[in-house]
Amino acid sequence: MDVDTTVSAIVSMEIRGAGKIARAGASALSYFAENYSGTDLAPFMKELNDARDKILGSRPTAVSLWNGVHSTLKDVDTCASVEEAKELIISNAERFNKESLGAVKLIGEMGAKRIQDGDVILTHCNSSAALSVIKTAHAQGKKFRVYATESRPWRQGILTVNELAKEGIDITLIIDSAVRSVMKHVTKVFVGADTITSHGSLINKIGTSQLALAANEARVQFYVCSETYKFSPMTLYGDMVTIEERDQDEVVMGADIDGRVKIFNPVFDSTPGKYIDAIITEVGLISPGSVYNIMVSKLGNVILQN
Amino acid sequence: MDVDTTVSAIVSMEIRGAGKIARAGASALSYFAENYSGTDLAPFMKELNDARDKILGSRPTAVSLWNGVHSTLKDVDTCASVEEAKELIISNAERFNKESLGAVKLIGEMGAKRIQDGDVILTHCNSSAALSVIKTAHAQGKKFRVYATESRPWRQGILTVNELAKEGIDITLIIDSAVRSVMKHVTKVFVGADTITSHGSLINKIGTSQLALAANEARVQFYVCSETYKFSPMTLYGDMVTIEERDQDEVVMGADIDGRVKIFNPVFDSTPGKYIDAIITEVGLISPGSVYNIMVSKLGNVILQN
Amino acid sequence: MDVDTTVSAIVSMEIRGAGKIARAGASALSYFAENYSGTDLAPFMKELNDARDKILGSRPTAVSLWNGVHSTLKDVDTCASVEEAKELIISNAERFNKESLGAVKLIGEMGAKRIQDGDVILTHCNSSAALSVIKTAHAQGKKFRVYATESRPWRQGILTVNELAKEGIDITLIIDSAVRSVMKHVTKVFVGADTITSHGSLINKIGTSQLALAANEARVQFYVCSETYKFSPMTLYGDMVTIEERDQDEVVMGADIDGRVKIFNPVFDSTPGKYIDAIITEVGLISPGSVYNIMVSKLGNVILQN
Amino acid sequence: MDVDTTVSAIVSMEIRGAGKIARAGASALSYFAENYSGTDLAPFMKELNDARDKILGSRPTAVSLWNGVHSTLKDVDTCASVEEAKELIISNAERFNKESLGAVKLIGEMGAKRIQDGDVILTHCNSSAALSVIKTAHAQGKKFRVYATESRPWRQGILTVNELAKEGIDITLIIDSAVRSVMKHVTKVFVGADTITSHGSLINKIGTSQLALAANEARVQFYVCSETYKFSPMTLYGDMVTIEERDQDEVVMGADIDGRVKIFNPVFDSTPGKYIDAIITEVGLISPGSVYNIMVSKLGNVILQN
Amino acid sequence: MDVDTTVSAIVSMEIRGAGKIARAGASALSYFAENYSGTDLAPFMKELNDARDKILGSRPTAVSLWNGVHSTLKDVDTCASVEEAKELIISNAERFNKESLGAVKLIGEMGAKRIQDGDVILTHCNSSAALSVIKTAHAQGKKFRVYATESRPWRQGILTVNELAKEGIDITLIIDSAVRSVMKHVTKVFVGADTITSHGSLINKIGTSQLALAANEARVQFYVCSETYKFSPMTLYGDMVTIEERDQDEVVMGADIDGRVKIFNPVFDSTPGKYIDAIITEVGLISPGSVYNIMVSKLGNVILQN
Amino acid sequence: MDVDTTVSAIVSMEIRGAGKIARAGASALSYFAENYSGTDLAPFMKELNDARDKILGSRPTAVSLWNGVHSTLKDVDTCASVEEAKELIISNAERFNKESLGAVKLIGEMGAKRIQDGDVILTHCNSSAALSVIKTAHAQGKKFRVYATESRPWRQGILTVNELAKEGIDITLIIDSAVRSVMKHVTKVFVGADTITSHGSLINKIGTSQLALAANEARVQFYVCSETYKFSPMTLYGDMVTIEERDQDEVVMGADIDGRVKIFNPVFDSTPGKYIDAIITEVGLISPGSVYNIMVSKLGNVILQN
Repeated sequence: MDVDTTVSAIVSMEIRGAGKIARAGASALSYFAENYSGTDLAPFMKELNDARDKILGSRPTAVSLWNGVHSTLKDVDTCASVEEAKELIISNAERFNKESLGAVKLIGEMGAKRIQDGDVILTHCNSSAALSVIKTAHAQGKKFRVYATESRPWRQGILTVNELAKEGIDITLIIDSAVRSVMKHVTKVFVGADTITSHGSLINKIGTSQLALAANEARVQFYVCSETYKFSPMTLYGDMVTIEERDQDEVVMGADIDGRVKIFNPVFDSTPGKYIDAIITEVGLISPGSVYNIMVSKLGNVILQN
Repeated sequence: MDVDTTVSAIVSMEIRGAGKIARAGASALSYFAENYSGTDLAPFMKELNDARDKILGSRPTAVSLWNGVHSTLKDVDTCASVEEAKELIISNAERFNKESLGAVKLIGEMGAKRIQDGDVILTHCNSSAALSVIKTAHAQGKKFRVYATESRPWRQGILTVNELAKEGIDITLIIDSAVRSVMKHVTKVFVGADTITSHGSLINKIGTSQLALAANEARVQFYVCSETYKFSPMTLYGDMVTIEERDQDEVVMGADIDGRVKIFNPVFDSTPGKYIDAIITEVGLISPGSVYNIMVSKLGNVILQN
Repeated sequence: MDVDTTVSAIVSMEIRGAGKIARAGASALSYFAENYSGTDLAPFMKELNDARDKILGSRPTAVSLWNGVHSTLKDVDTCASVEEAKELIISNAERFNKESLGAVKLIGEMGAKRIQDGDVILTHCNSSAALSVIKTAHAQGKKFRVYATESRPWRQGILTVNELAKEGIDITLIIDSAVRSVMKHVTKVFVGADTITSHGSLINKIGTSQLALAANEARVQFYVCSETYKFSPMTLYGDMVTIEERDQDEVVMGADIDGRVKIFNPVFDSTPGKYIDAIITEVGLISPGSVYNIMVSKLGNVILQN
Repeated sequence: MDVDTTVSAIVSMEIRGAGKIARAGASALSYFAENYSGTDLAPFMKELNDARDKILGSRPTAVSLWNGVHSTLKDVDTCASVEEAKELIISNAERFNKESLGAVKLIGEMGAKRIQDGDVILTHCNSSAALSVIKTAHAQGKKFRVYATESRPWRQGILTVNELAKEGIDITLIIDSAVRSVMKHVTKVFVGADTITSHGSLINKIGTSQLALAANEARVQFYVCSETYKFSPMTLYGDMVTIEERDQDEVVMGADIDGRVKIFNPVFDSTPGKYIDAIITEVGLISPGSVYNIMVSKLGNVILQN
Repeated sequence: MDVDTTVSAIVSMEIRGAGKIARAGASALSYFAENYSGTDLAPFMKELNDARDKILGSRPTAVSLWNGVHSTLKDVDTCASVEEAKELIISNAERFNKESLGAVKLIGEMGAKRIQDGDVILTHCNSSAALSVIKTAHAQGKKFRVYATESRPWRQGILTVNELAKEGIDITLIIDSAVRSVMKHVTKVFVGADTITSHGSLINKIGTSQLALAANEARVQFYVCSETYKFSPMTLYGDMVTIEERDQDEVVMGADIDGRVKIFNPVFDSTPGKYIDAIITEVGLISPGSVYNIMVSKLGNVILQN
Repeated sequence: MDVDTTVSAIVSMEIRGAGKIARAGASALSYFAENYSGTDLAPFMKELNDARDKILGSRPTAVSLWNGVHSTLKDVDTCASVEEAKELIISNAERFNKESLGAVKLIGEMGAKRIQDGDVILTHCNSSAALSVIKTAHAQGKKFRVYATESRPWRQGILTVNELAKEGIDITLIIDSAVRSVMKHVTKVFVGADTITSHGSLINKIGTSQLALAANEARVQFYVCSETYKFSPMTLYGDMVTIEERDQDEVVMGADIDGRVKIFNPVFDSTPGKYIDAIITEVGLISPGSVYNIMVSKLGNVILQN
């Protein structure tokens, strides 16, 4: 799909989901390279940069898009010819897309090794990577049970419990306030990630940091399941991740509320690396202290020259 | 009101609320004493014990009722005559009822002294003692703002925010998962109590212990507002407080749930004394380490001879 | 038994064990009072003080003896006549002995209420009060399992596991180094006490403080089972509890050791109150912050006039 | 000295220091009682209350004065005659003054028992009770060394090091920023108290809470040396201790400062009870959880009827 | 030695010890390469893979063997000819063996720099790398003393104290339960490693994690001495390290045990990275957060393509 | 400037400041290379090593000089000819100098992104990198206020407050003892660095570790602003950073001190990585766990072959 069509599809939400957006961005640049007919490097680079900026502009807050685009452009500025650059772009895009597609499956397989018979697992919200871990372990015949939080205000916990019950997994729903109460029975926590910063903090669904805090208090292992394209290079330059606030109606949910009452409805919160035992990524199980180096090795000289 | 009428009214929920039940129990014993016509001590004590057991049986899990009854019977076994016993019972009941009625107001006044201009307060659920503190401080002209949690599943936070908004207090509603997120802005937490144990733990609305944990992590003061008739002498004998579990429908709230999903819906949780800065009672601001001695001084020789 | 016979029996180790020594001291003073024939207060008090000093001198480091003697002498200096003093001493001694004899049983009953089906308990060394809790709960039909440490160098854990196995309790022996390793499965720790200080620290078998530390790290409840005659009034005056060091042969146990190697073999260690959830005593379940007041109420004006 | 002369002397700073003010207040009330000639109770009580209010008004923020006055008036409202009240007041005042005078010496003796050969002690500011502990231990021939902080802005540490050097104690001066740096060598911390609250917090010279925090981080024992007349009954009613702010010149100390720079110069800070191992008082070594009960037993029915 | 002979020697325990096994595996592959006579790449790679699998199969749980083999095969799949591959294998094996042989000595030299006059060191079990640090510092004339734990059940502490005493080092033996008791005097802990995971956890002799916990509580530095061939790439793929359980007789040691008593005898425990100040390796002093990157840089493209 | 002139200027303090010394060392080697006229590699390398040693000897404790010199010599030992080596040295020096000059500005820009309207910032001493962050944020129009410590004994805080006041920044001076007291109002701490170790510890102005500890207690973010040439490769080899002690007169400052008083005046202290949220460097915002890898990537094969 060409750049403009891709941009329109992202803007219109036709293409959505962290992984799909990222792969669409990579593919659009690959398409651009494949179909470029000139041979002078300077105009090629200029058009390439324009294409890059358009794509990034289609969803400026999406870390995965940034990663898809910059992984595709990795080392392009060292190319000596248009031909060389085109080849590099095409192979970069292909590699990014392949790795991205396989990431959730790989995370599921690695994470499942951390689950043992008798475990009591807690999860929050509805993360495909975290659920991949749980389902893979179940499919391997491991015997364990799972608590899932309701995850107000959207109550994605309802999706989670139904999804796991369908697999025949022993699943119990709790309200978000019951996290510390059940933590005394829990042996391992698995959550997903919206964004991971260069210094190893986790940005994820509101409430995640409470799980981490309560797990830490009770010496319970806290695992984050995250594809590496959720690692945010913008944070490496110091940017703070913006925590979106959503509509108050999601919280009020039809209750009769005095007009003077304010509602604060943040979507995400931030969990410090010290509460994270390991991040399970498609390139292995790492400590939060290793995020920076994975960013740098994935993105090479793009980093800090952007 | 006589003993049997009182017992019926408590059983039928006509009389309810921790304070009201306690005062009804004390009054019924006072009524019994006032109207007792015999002069032999032995039959008097026997009938008195029967009356006591009937009243306690009307709501066996209510700590406040236990305290009202035993405060009324304090030192009765040392009396040498029916006359003396009757007088003691009547005056004990009168004192208990007067102190009980004044307790929430006293707690409000003492607690309000802990609030300063610029404070950001967090409260949970809908505690009359905690709200008494907040409203008293507001009535004194102090400038502060308040966060209140939704308090799923019953969402008593809706009551709280409306109640405080009506007073003109700057109030913001958050979901329960946002507690750690807002804690970085909070300066003081005020919560109520269902029960306080002899070794200084707090049993209160599910989620309270998460507030305490997050407050402790952020060096935010955590105050418990509790009348002393919430102190449980049964815990002094080693009894664990039973944490009631309620119906799963309260959690599901109309969502479409797979039949294999279990729901765990505990009403209370337990907060260890180490996370409590002070308990604000009608006899003063105390540390959790002082609970035992207040129990003993309030109940005297009843303790451990029961 | 008269004072001199009692003193000889304590010195010769014929009478031993914290509780037995304490009761023998109380009884000797009672015997002295019963058999005193004079009526002048001054000589009586002088002879009483001599008797007291002899008895205390028979085992000067025994906290329980100190408590037995001083509980027996409580308020004697306020008596106006020999008759009054004699009566007081006799009744004080009787009360102390009765309470002391019943204490372990009471502690067992109160502590057993803290054990629930499914619990995994850890104990250390061989404490009769802690084992009373475990056995009482088992006798009540509760289903739980127990870990016991070996408790080097004397390996009293061997006694403990045999004692519990005989009752049919599910019991597992571990080495002392495995405490943190099994703590992730443990729900409650019960240990005994050698001495408890006025500010709520526990002096107990070496290794106890490591259990407490590991329990605290994993949010596992840590209970101390202690008769109140283990509370040390000497610590109230600032005295530090002397930690006895024993012979190196106990550690070496036949191994071939280079002559230049030193051996450090302390019998006890000190656990700070902040790691203790509750102390289970015969007067109830208390927080470490309540120890001082129990000392004062038990010993009255003896305290600080000694 | 009569009430008016006493009040003048306190106001004019002729009488100062926590202990001296307290004893002057007690003596003035005793003088009033001794010299009262009427026999009707009502006018006596009225004049007594006027005297009390005048005295308290001479230094309204002095906790010790409050304690001296109320200890003197303890149980006076239960007296049936002027004669009885006069006797009680005189004996109360005498007891308070005697205990107050002996308190620092008693604290020194008790605290010295906590010091052992080889200890490395840290102290802050210039507390007579803390220095009494250190000097007493030195006089007993114990071998230890001491670090003292400079204690900016008034640099009372200079007084402390000179005072201890004169005794021949091995003493090292450090700047306030070096506390955590030397803490790795320190075994025990001894500080004084300005005020202790009913829930066991310590209000003391600015910087004290940093010592406590750093001691807690390094498992170093933190002792507070405090006469019980520093316990503040006002905090029992919920009052917060006002932290005095002093002149900016004390901080600037002649440096050339831009006019737009603000200076914040608080005199005290607040140390939570959880960082305090024990409070050494003239009535013994206690945990912060025992403060409330000592207040109540010292002040009796004055408490909460004031 | 050829592949088959090497495999037999490892299986028969003729070759044992983490370092020796690893070097034997590397040498066998080098021998294979040197003696390979064909020139077609495909059959060479096939035979090479067979050799690799045989060697790994001789001790599948040995992390060091895995590292020796994969370090030797590093980048072989990028070679364009048999000749190139043979050269690479031979030089890889040589480098691995040289580094491995020098590692303990290098760790000893680096670690010794962390020891200062006056230090009090604690060690556990009998780690050659940790003892290398201690002996090197002693040989440099540094003045310090050492505590060593008994390390039940095998009591390797006896070996340690004899080994250090022979060097003239001031050494004291303690039982495992005395770790927290002596920690207040200790300034630095040095332990060895069995395995280190990709996210920076330490798997080592049972009891190690208690040392780490007690060191952390007392702000004592905790150093792990580990050759990088103890870093486990299998953990990078999510594998949990299997904690071996050994025979109950090792614990019982001749005591008379009731047949119903169970024995739990794990060989290792797991210490989280947050309790480790630094890992001293032959490539430098690192934080646990750097383990992943050393694995990746040592093993290159082998990682995650295996 | 040639090598000898540079060495003299560094020794005479004509050239000083971490950055200037480092760049002078790099430039001197570049000058040496540019002006070398021979073509044989061996004598070139010998002279080069001599030059290196002279330069390093001019200030042996300066981490920045070490980094400037070794960054300039990076990979020189892999060069096959003098010509190649000269080119490499010249370009290495140029790159180091350029990056070094831009580092403080880059850190200012990245760090400023972490400051938000309403923040309350605390800084210590007078760090150009930390102040660059604060001034950049102010220049961007952000609204916040700043606390600065006095930083005894040199009182560099006076410089800091004047410098910030001149920019119109809302600035308040506090004494060093008031850090924990104001921390309850602070939202972010920014400090500089003297040295950062390979395992992520910070060596900085005495008092820094107290700020970190108090920030950690209150969940306040603690940022270190550090150019990467402050990362100490010597610590990678195990070297401990020597903490300089300065003259006692700096502490005494004219006070009258008893001759027996000792003064301990360390210039720096050490903050463990666990208290550091992020290190803001010119190559991005990193966790302490990433320091080792940046060292290795900056210095390449110099590391561990030195």
